[in-house]
Amino acid sequence: MLQRLNHVALAVPDLQAAVATYRSMLGASVSAPQSLPEHGVTVVFVELENTKIELLEPLGENSPIAAFLAKNPKGGMHHLCYEVADIVAARDRLVASGARVLGDGEPRVGAHGKPVLFLHPGDVHGTLTELEQV
Amino acid sequence: MLQRLNHVALAVPDLQAAVATYRSMLGASVSAPQSLPEHGVTVVFVELENTKIELLEPLGENSPIAAFLAKNPKGGMHHLCYEVADIVAARDRLVASGARVLGDGEPRVGAHGKPVLFLHPGDVHGTLTELEQV
Repeated sequence: MLQRLNHVALAVPDLQAAVATYRSMLGASVSAPQSLPEHGVTVVFVELENTKIELLEPLGENSPIAAFLAKNPKGGMHHLCYEVADIVAARDRLVASGARVLGDGEPRVGAHGKPVLFLHPGDVHGTLTELEQV
Repeated sequence: MLQRLNHVALAVPDLQAAVATYRSMLGASVSAPQSLPEHGVTVVFVELENTKIELLEPLGENSPIAAFLAKNPKGGMHHLCYEVADIVAARDRLVASGARVLGDGEPRVGAHGKPVLFLHPGDVHGTLTELEQV
């Protein structure tokens, strides 16, 4: 079911400072920031040869990463996203295994315009896990 | 400087249970466990198309992941490892940027038999970051 690792998402309190770290200190290619108000984040992509790292900064009220940053004020590793071929088949398999899909249990359109779902980290050994149909 | 994402390391309290989750619930290919007593972990690899996820369980006294699991008893995301072409050049660039290399500041031989270093998470916006010369 799991195919490629689509991205690793890191939450950061100050996106501009994080971009400087990845560009200057770590010598990585980093995209321009994109504001995604409907997802409550501003995002940049650290472009690696085989995958990407998403750096996420909260945007607006009720950002989905605000609680994480309140607990981890310096930032940290937020979630992993794996690609799957069929998100509905994936959801059915997960639910049959007893896993909890966050929200109303249905795939929704994620920040990349593709159908996604998030699994409860308590069902994946403490790691918040996103699946995306590519 | 950063090239491929070599792996994402997840610490888990029960490797056998985690292997079952990744194999049966998530449909991934998972390697046989390897005990690395000199590194204080038992490891399996979740083999994805473009990178791998390392699941780490503490082994023996003084495991380097014991403190993390004491704070995160269900497990969680432990570190990211990026490939670099030249670990000594990378170390010099990092030190010149004011970043702290853990341990004695020198690259050492990591769990894959390659030279590695770890950066202090406080210098990378809260994410424990490993560099490996491949």
